[in-house]
Amino acid sequence: MAETGKRRISVLGSTGSIGVNTLDVVNQLGGRDAFEVVAITGNANVALLAEQAKTSGAKLAVTADDAHYGSLKEALSGTGIEVAAGRQALIEAGARDADLVMAAIVGTAGLAPTLAAAKRGADIALANKECLVSAGELFVKAVAKGGGRLIPVDSEHSAIFQSLEDDQHHAVERIVLTASGGPFRTWTREQMAGVTADIARAHPNWSMGLKISIGSASMFNKALEMIEAKHLFDVAPDQIEVIVHPQSIIHSMVGYRDGSVLAQLGSPDMRTAIGYALTYPNRSKLDVQRLDFAKLARLDFEAPDEMRFPALRLARTALERGGVQGAVMNAAEEISFHAFCAGRIGFLNMADIAEQVMDDMAGYGVAMTMDEVFAADAEARRRADEIIAKKEMAA
Amino acid sequence: MAETGKRRISVLGSTGSIGVNTLDVVNQLGGRDAFEVVAITGNANVALLAEQAKTSGAKLAVTADDAHYGSLKEALSGTGIEVAAGRQALIEAGARDADLVMAAIVGTAGLAPTLAAAKRGADIALANKECLVSAGELFVKAVAKGGGRLIPVDSEHSAIFQSLEDDQHHAVERIVLTASGGPFRTWTREQMAGVTADIARAHPNWSMGLKISIGSASMFNKALEMIEAKHLFDVAPDQIEVIVHPQSIIHSMVGYRDGSVLAQLGSPDMRTAIGYALTYPNRSKLDVQRLDFAKLARLDFEAPDEMRFPALRLARTALERGGVQGAVMNAAEEISFHAFCAGRIGFLNMADIAEQVMDDMAGYGVAMTMDEVFAADAEARRRADEIIAKKEMAA
Repeated sequence: MAETGKRRISVLGSTGSIGVNTLDVVNQLGGRDAFEVVAITGNANVALLAEQAKTSGAKLAVTADDAHYGSLKEALSGTGIEVAAGRQALIEAGARDADLVMAAIVGTAGLAPTLAAAKRGADIALANKECLVSAGELFVKAVAKGGGRLIPVDSEHSAIFQSLEDDQHHAVERIVLTASGGPFRTWTREQMAGVTADIARAHPNWSMGLKISIGSASMFNKALEMIEAKHLFDVAPDQIEVIVHPQSIIHSMVGYRDGSVLAQLGSPDMRTAIGYALTYPNRSKLDVQRLDFAKLARLDFEAPDEMRFPALRLARTALERGGVQGAVMNAAEEISFHAFCAGRIGFLNMADIAEQVMDDMAGYGVAMTMDEVFAADAEARRRADEIIAKKEMAA
Repeated sequence: MAETGKRRISVLGSTGSIGVNTLDVVNQLGGRDAFEVVAITGNANVALLAEQAKTSGAKLAVTADDAHYGSLKEALSGTGIEVAAGRQALIEAGARDADLVMAAIVGTAGLAPTLAAAKRGADIALANKECLVSAGELFVKAVAKGGGRLIPVDSEHSAIFQSLEDDQHHAVERIVLTASGGPFRTWTREQMAGVTADIARAHPNWSMGLKISIGSASMFNKALEMIEAKHLFDVAPDQIEVIVHPQSIIHSMVGYRDGSVLAQLGSPDMRTAIGYALTYPNRSKLDVQRLDFAKLARLDFEAPDEMRFPALRLARTALERGGVQGAVMNAAEEISFHAFCAGRIGFLNMADIAEQVMDDMAGYGVAMTMDEVFAADAEARRRADEIIAKKEMAA
């Protein structure tokens, strides 16, 4: 805590949807009276980043891209707000002395700055998947060594975190991740084979970015969440269940050995999980939609179909193989996602490519350093690119 | 704890359904190796009481009815188990030195023995409704003064207890009691007017005694649970919601001011709540049916209809009026329940009579002593009897 009693917070990835909502929650929870914003970082949306810096009173604003330094500097000239740019500046932003760092940079780019924050000992509100999917063991160790707490921001993992009783981790029998099932929940493989990125991005419940929308349609998001859950909650692969729950009201559950299941429910509004991460273990008043159960009327559940959504099967494979398979799966998926969006491959090819790269790299051992993670990540991307290029040649 | 490290437990009302399940759970949790059964008490089912005493190794067995003393004494002769009978003996059983007392005597008869246990400082696993409905303020004070903990055993209140975060009581916005809706959930008032006790006792989800079955059909149980909830969780009347949830899978919920709702779910098996009360704050392995969400397929919710189920409206009235209105409502309901079972009044008359007695006794103030509670209870019974007799005269 700063001497002022204000909570010092940095938001890595402040211009993305998690970042924007984080600053909204900061505002709801008292704004500058309650928080001191140490640093915010963004990428190409310099106008929003500059506006956020001015509104929140941030001490430092960083754009990830050196090319935007000039325009950010100009937008903030005369404000006294420090400006920086580039990958190293992101890492320095993460390492600035804060009580809590919201880690919301999307993709592998979020790894280094978040790790810097973890090493510095800040509490980490984690919205970046790659820290756990690609570098789970190393990241969890770094947080433990730094002495901060790791608080998930994903609605599913936040729900599990909220449903976990502090001293009863040993009594956990299973965790149950709920999945909306995405826009293709009821589609056949044949129907899915022909979809385009525009169709796939239409998510039924959550308003999200393109990457997450496609990941929801393929259930790749859920697959990555399974791996995250393993590292966050230290459970065995067979303790992780996925259940399709189209309404996304039960955000996830924990089953205990006495037969009890604890669950966290809420409107599909990421601000609840963000608020929880910002004030944990306390709960502050938030202006989000309350659940009206009579109006909800019903909640549905169905078993996930791993034939139609092979990403879930791949996640189990990655969990069982361990090592860098999470990093490999994530990297191959990212490459195939971009190829899908560019119209170079079909929707179903994404999982095929990820599986092939995972199989080809099954012999890779546990990563002992972040460099080994990055190497596995790069190798998986290269191999995925290669497969895609071959596919195009053959077509 | 006894010097042996075993948990010393007494079961008041061991031959009822809660009592039988409690001894089953005790057995599952290690039986005599883990528990020392200090005392068990029953009523007319002497054969079962004697068998339970022998199987559990109870030190003391008490029948509430003096008339059964001889047969209980005979059944336990040569076992070394102490035998006693009568109301005073029940109270003494409650006051025996135990770590935890399961208070499962049904009705007003459970008040004095449970209060004795509370004053003695035992943790109270509370299954008796009247302690809170009729004597809420006094009982909660007695437990606090005795220094024991109050752990609800009712599945709904156990669910709320499990969903309540220790240090976040101030952040509770509402508690949501789920209700199966009973066998007449979809019936019109006209249809309900003609039902008999045999029809009303057929509960869709839980296997229960007649009193509870009829109370489920009229939703009087839920009405009493609303009053219990007020005393257990110290919430205002308008913080208590009831939602009809026919599958009885979500046992109840707590809504927090950040929009989060925490819930406890489970199979409709009272042993989960009993086990939780016996081992709180720990969770031990229990052989109860696990939830299979894909098999459940759906959970439904609907607003309760206070026109068709006026007991819920009466509970709100009792909560708003305070004083002895809970005791009055409960006593009048018990009398009208018996009159209904005897075919003396119709199903819908039960609530009418309770309402009339509650209105007539609205001027009664807060009870400062248990004797004042008993006096209000007796007066309500007398008035209910009178109304029923008049009804019969008029018919």
